[in-house]
Amino acid sequence: MIIAKELKGKLKNIELPAVKKCAVAYSGGLDSSLGIELLRRIYKVRQIIPITVDVGQGEDEIDLAVRRAGQLKIDPLIIDCKQDFSENWLKKAIRANSDYYGYPVSTSMTRQLIAGTIASKAVELRCDSILEGSTGRGNDQFRMHNVIKMFAPDMTVLVPVRDFDLTRSQELKLCEEWGVPVEEVISGGDDKTMWCRSIASGAIALNQELPDNIWMWLVPPEKAPARPETVSLTFEQGIPTAINGRNRPLADIILELNIVAGRNGIGRIDIFEDGIMCLKSHEIYEAPAARLILTLKADLEAQCLTKEEREFKKSIDSRWASLVYHGEWYHPLKDNLDAFISQSQKFVNGSIKAKLYKGNIECIERENSTSSLFFPEVRSIESNSFDQRWCADAARIRGLPFELLAKRREKVKEGY
Amino acid sequence: MIIAKELKGKLKNIELPAVKKCAVAYSGGLDSSLGIELLRRIYKVRQIIPITVDVGQGEDEIDLAVRRAGQLKIDPLIIDCKQDFSENWLKKAIRANSDYYGYPVSTSMTRQLIAGTIASKAVELRCDSILEGSTGRGNDQFRMHNVIKMFAPDMTVLVPVRDFDLTRSQELKLCEEWGVPVEEVISGGDDKTMWCRSIASGAIALNQELPDNIWMWLVPPEKAPARPETVSLTFEQGIPTAINGRNRPLADIILELNIVAGRNGIGRIDIFEDGIMCLKSHEIYEAPAARLILTLKADLEAQCLTKEEREFKKSIDSRWASLVYHGEWYHPLKDNLDAFISQSQKFVNGSIKAKLYKGNIECIERENSTSSLFFPEVRSIESNSFDQRWCADAARIRGLPFELLAKRREKVKEGY
Amino acid sequence: MIIAKELKGKLKNIELPAVKKCAVAYSGGLDSSLGIELLRRIYKVRQIIPITVDVGQGEDEIDLAVRRAGQLKIDPLIIDCKQDFSENWLKKAIRANSDYYGYPVSTSMTRQLIAGTIASKAVELRCDSILEGSTGRGNDQFRMHNVIKMFAPDMTVLVPVRDFDLTRSQELKLCEEWGVPVEEVISGGDDKTMWCRSIASGAIALNQELPDNIWMWLVPPEKAPARPETVSLTFEQGIPTAINGRNRPLADIILELNIVAGRNGIGRIDIFEDGIMCLKSHEIYEAPAARLILTLKADLEAQCLTKEEREFKKSIDSRWASLVYHGEWYHPLKDNLDAFISQSQKFVNGSIKAKLYKGNIECIERENSTSSLFFPEVRSIESNSFDQRWCADAARIRGLPFELLAKRREKVKEGY
Amino acid sequence: MIIAKELKGKLKNIELPAVKKCAVAYSGGLDSSLGIELLRRIYKVRQIIPITVDVGQGEDEIDLAVRRAGQLKIDPLIIDCKQDFSENWLKKAIRANSDYYGYPVSTSMTRQLIAGTIASKAVELRCDSILEGSTGRGNDQFRMHNVIKMFAPDMTVLVPVRDFDLTRSQELKLCEEWGVPVEEVISGGDDKTMWCRSIASGAIALNQELPDNIWMWLVPPEKAPARPETVSLTFEQGIPTAINGRNRPLADIILELNIVAGRNGIGRIDIFEDGIMCLKSHEIYEAPAARLILTLKADLEAQCLTKEEREFKKSIDSRWASLVYHGEWYHPLKDNLDAFISQSQKFVNGSIKAKLYKGNIECIERENSTSSLFFPEVRSIESNSFDQRWCADAARIRGLPFELLAKRREKVKEGY
Repeated sequence: MIIAKELKGKLKNIELPAVKKCAVAYSGGLDSSLGIELLRRIYKVRQIIPITVDVGQGEDEIDLAVRRAGQLKIDPLIIDCKQDFSENWLKKAIRANSDYYGYPVSTSMTRQLIAGTIASKAVELRCDSILEGSTGRGNDQFRMHNVIKMFAPDMTVLVPVRDFDLTRSQELKLCEEWGVPVEEVISGGDDKTMWCRSIASGAIALNQELPDNIWMWLVPPEKAPARPETVSLTFEQGIPTAINGRNRPLADIILELNIVAGRNGIGRIDIFEDGIMCLKSHEIYEAPAARLILTLKADLEAQCLTKEEREFKKSIDSRWASLVYHGEWYHPLKDNLDAFISQSQKFVNGSIKAKLYKGNIECIERENSTSSLFFPEVRSIESNSFDQRWCADAARIRGLPFELLAKRREKVKEGY
Repeated sequence: MIIAKELKGKLKNIELPAVKKCAVAYSGGLDSSLGIELLRRIYKVRQIIPITVDVGQGEDEIDLAVRRAGQLKIDPLIIDCKQDFSENWLKKAIRANSDYYGYPVSTSMTRQLIAGTIASKAVELRCDSILEGSTGRGNDQFRMHNVIKMFAPDMTVLVPVRDFDLTRSQELKLCEEWGVPVEEVISGGDDKTMWCRSIASGAIALNQELPDNIWMWLVPPEKAPARPETVSLTFEQGIPTAINGRNRPLADIILELNIVAGRNGIGRIDIFEDGIMCLKSHEIYEAPAARLILTLKADLEAQCLTKEEREFKKSIDSRWASLVYHGEWYHPLKDNLDAFISQSQKFVNGSIKAKLYKGNIECIERENSTSSLFFPEVRSIESNSFDQRWCADAARIRGLPFELLAKRREKVKEGY
Repeated sequence: MIIAKELKGKLKNIELPAVKKCAVAYSGGLDSSLGIELLRRIYKVRQIIPITVDVGQGEDEIDLAVRRAGQLKIDPLIIDCKQDFSENWLKKAIRANSDYYGYPVSTSMTRQLIAGTIASKAVELRCDSILEGSTGRGNDQFRMHNVIKMFAPDMTVLVPVRDFDLTRSQELKLCEEWGVPVEEVISGGDDKTMWCRSIASGAIALNQELPDNIWMWLVPPEKAPARPETVSLTFEQGIPTAINGRNRPLADIILELNIVAGRNGIGRIDIFEDGIMCLKSHEIYEAPAARLILTLKADLEAQCLTKEEREFKKSIDSRWASLVYHGEWYHPLKDNLDAFISQSQKFVNGSIKAKLYKGNIECIERENSTSSLFFPEVRSIESNSFDQRWCADAARIRGLPFELLAKRREKVKEGY
Repeated sequence: MIIAKELKGKLKNIELPAVKKCAVAYSGGLDSSLGIELLRRIYKVRQIIPITVDVGQGEDEIDLAVRRAGQLKIDPLIIDCKQDFSENWLKKAIRANSDYYGYPVSTSMTRQLIAGTIASKAVELRCDSILEGSTGRGNDQFRMHNVIKMFAPDMTVLVPVRDFDLTRSQELKLCEEWGVPVEEVISGGDDKTMWCRSIASGAIALNQELPDNIWMWLVPPEKAPARPETVSLTFEQGIPTAINGRNRPLADIILELNIVAGRNGIGRIDIFEDGIMCLKSHEIYEAPAARLILTLKADLEAQCLTKEEREFKKSIDSRWASLVYHGEWYHPLKDNLDAFISQSQKFVNGSIKAKLYKGNIECIERENSTSSLFFPEVRSIESNSFDQRWCADAARIRGLPFELLAKRREKVKEGY
């Protein structure tokens, strides 16, 4: 058995930790399925507690996990965190205009939600270890590690793909040899959440054309309907609370918008992303609802926040997205940022109707709500609301620094 | 004469400055044409020096200025600053990804270029005053004031519309009475530069539908061609130097892209803008070339700058745009920012081919140039370029702060 | 009467507002005393409501105000805001490490507290105007204006010294002529609060030697005792709550520390300050308690905040101080900053004993409290708490960007 | 032999790299001396190239290195980088007001200077490896690694103390056993440069009293002379160029000021420092010249930079210090920052005379140079340079946002 041999070679220099009872972040995917088998064959633990956390990856994914579990002869504990995700994570994300250079930070959040959920459960069940399926090339290993160390600092963390330095083809061969069930649709993996779907984890080549069937929600602009569609969103304290006038829970609004915006060509993301290890990857995401919500939210903030808040909140939001991306959801600094952000949203209220057309989002009706700071009557050229002459003096005072700079230029020129 | 009377009322409390020789920022528009007449009738200067600065507003505008000048019986000095504008201003703007909350800062620049040009000329010609046509409700008065005070600190600045607190209808009546030629297309005025056209100066109501004929370059997405068009841009040190492989001066590239991108529905801007006086205005701009160039430039920076440069340059670029918007082009801080930005662009080199389709810009071919920092081979899952096991330890070290936070939580819990 | 004439000249071009009932920010000083007389003689109001706000300027100042009031035949309403100032303003300031380039922002706060108090009272009493004594060269006029416009937007604001463009000598002459009582100790004025005393409002020349008797609390280092004194402060959530182990209200701690630190040469501030109008002034302050509290607080934050919080809070604190200095205490952005800051202080707990000696503050005993993040045992060279070898890999991963930069250099060199 | 055994145990799981010719960063200290012996006994290299880089650690240190080299039977190459350090590193540092939370970043620089010098030499001499003596608990390993990977990416980096996870006592025992000469004065080590001396590398306990003889330059305030001393510094473009009017190279000025300021009690630094691994350490430094130069430099910048430059440069300087501290001197972002900083220093010119007294620095004579932006005559209360009435209108315009906020409050209250 070539691979077993190879793995044996890899194991030679590795001191295996002595663990007995292990909680597994089990998704039914390649990495976590193989992990179960490694726990049995290599780590030789006595007790395996597979835990599947439902963060809205969809029924298909959950079903798959259960089906595979049967084949693996395990009975995973399924913990439903969908409500937790939309109410406690996505609301914060929307308030923070979550944007890491074009990526609305989604897997960044769910991995931490999963890690925290499993760590707490593992402590409760007196496990001594947690196994998770990250590779050693991506961001998730860091995100999960931080959260596990925060909530279960004494737990041994097993990340076999990374710790045994396995390549994907080595993993596949091991699975074949050991009869671990695998069926992968997209090479490189795929991560779904209601907020954003990550496609192929950076494995799509730079100038590779994307086939239309790669998308789950998106209809590319050229295939999208020839007639525009309109949709109206109502925000309260920065959070969408109603769609076309109907009040709905946030999760429902997001699911509906993924369909509505997606079919109108909205939500394709194709970027260079600077990962946690400062390596650039070429990432493809689809996030129709996120794109639409964040676009309208930005327009609403432009109307309701003061100039100074808009400017300063940019740096706050940017730091927020960076912390969350880097696996630091539970960092005290993030709590501080959340406190700022939450306070800033008191007046982010109002409705916007948008026209969706082949990838374009156009705001066509903005309510000038009681929260708005847009007072066109004050500024209007025909208005008598303020005397233009005030500005003559205001300009003089504002311009004083330039008079001083001119004075200095004279001094320097004359050299006294 | 009602208006003359009204103006007389306004003048009662105003001490008119004693000026004799006045340089005029003359564009042929309503405000500066009326200014000429006010110099004659009210300020009673002896000598009027009208100066028209060509910043690429187009031949039509220049022709109009000359034609009106004939009617006003003046002979304006026309100073061609087109080259200066594209080479010394727009190159800096592009390097700085010029973006003030969605507005690519254009009039913000040309007003300062005009003010500086006229101030220098006025000093040279020994004028004692400069007249300019800003109103007292907008941003331009501040921009021009700062620059004039920097280059001609002793010059008296006359801004009659503001200083006499005239409304637009009062201006029109005065023109009628005094026979000053006027013909306005768009109410509220319009400001054209090759970089961006400002439409109606914030006078368009919030939910007013825009007629298709309001646009100069733009074909709205719904009317744009059903087939996509591709265009390729080459950047050297952050500046577009070739279009579809042909080397061209920047000004030519911009003029061509306004047409190409414009006809594909690209470049509509509809935003709330926080003006210098912190009043929000609803602004409509069209800027097809700017939108396309800045989009591809951002993609190229994502590929060629380090993660740390990308993050930090956001704050630099944001401050740059804010300074320029606020009329502080000649502020020493802007020179400092320019030095940073210029240095940062050494490796921003490469070509990108984009598909333009009904308002969408999609990067379809990115050159992985010698300047690129995208090394997919280092990160690839199948690669042997680095040992994943390194990351196990890296994760431990990166996660230390979370272990300390857990330690603190324990201390606090145990209360020792 | 030359001055009356001169004032008449000044009044010629001024349209006096028609006001009938005026609340006056009355301190007993030159500007507000003259203001009372101007209300009678020039503005000709029917009713004058003098209000003196006690913000801890000391009994002497309050007594003076009352005595002068008798001479002016007015009966000022005295509103005690000392508690408000220490509990609602200074606590926020200390949490924010209030520092505007060396100035702990004190008058910046009290002027806004005074303005808000008087504006609310003026609304309650149905006044139509508020008079305040700022000159037109300093910062206070802007601070008071903002706050009055926030709480009493319809009130006319009278600032006679500025609005009539009076110089100090003109003011003195008017007072003499009209029998307004004046006795000034320090030319240029002086502003006392418990947090910081401002000396001479920027009127002290650059290289002027300061006499020892200029100070209220401070004994200059050379005259301070030859033996050091120790003092211990306990902080809870960023606020001093005990001195030498005795729990005390914040105001009491500050008053005591002004004496203790002051007599040991601590708290002299001599800086160039960039005012609201961007004019530099040379300012002398004394603030013994503020200096000591902020120094120890900084040390405690260094111990209790995470590295990331320390770094980010710098920008928060800096913006906080800038907003407060610029008269924007009531700006929504400040509320947002306060929310961040308040959240950040949860773990800023602990005691520090300091040695005070001739201007020096040295931390000699720091409690390693339950809130501390200082864990020397983790980092100790002799410790076994973590395996140094982890760092070999961590260094490799951290160093990847430099390997990529080396790779790019090679690419560029080889020109492929 | 217990230790040899212990080391053998440690070596069991380590795959030793196959290296033949190794450049050694040799200082004569414990770690690098032991490194020489490990190269012979453990790594078994054929050729050892010890390199000692002189960065101004003083003749004593260089002599010691040479003497020890004799005992170790090696002949180190001594490369003099003193000039390079003061001209190319310290000048940048001073322009950047180098301050990492109280630490003027010194070793942070010299380690990188040493690493770069040795890496270049190693490439030139066709070495295949570099050995350096960092431990695996501090910052230096990361600094050296980054720079080596930048200039010699293919070189194997040996860091034996870390890679074999040796404690200090294990090192000492190995030295004893192998006859490696060692004599340490301060436990924990010490790092001297002309800019700042680092004492005991964080090994001093929190509340440990420091003996007076721990200092090299410093006389503690209580023992410093009873009479003040004055010193005058002249700066050109941000760099000290003359002391008491005599022009001198920067290195000479620093060396002289370490003595002058040190004997007056200036330059003691006692801080919590957040290291590269986010562990806090308690650090003691002495830096008399740095403290004095940076204090006067800050005062000069306050006088010569615009308000906006001062504010923005804070974030630039802070990022500069952070990059340098974290071993990223050669990062492109630092080049960008240097470009900003260099441009900002054009007008930082002038002389300041300071009084030094028992730890206090007081500016007693500031030249109001041609570069200064301090124009007291413009702001003076008695001046006629500007009309105070301008400010009435300026205050109205500045206060508009607060009127709008009041308008919004009304809207919300009335609920329309």
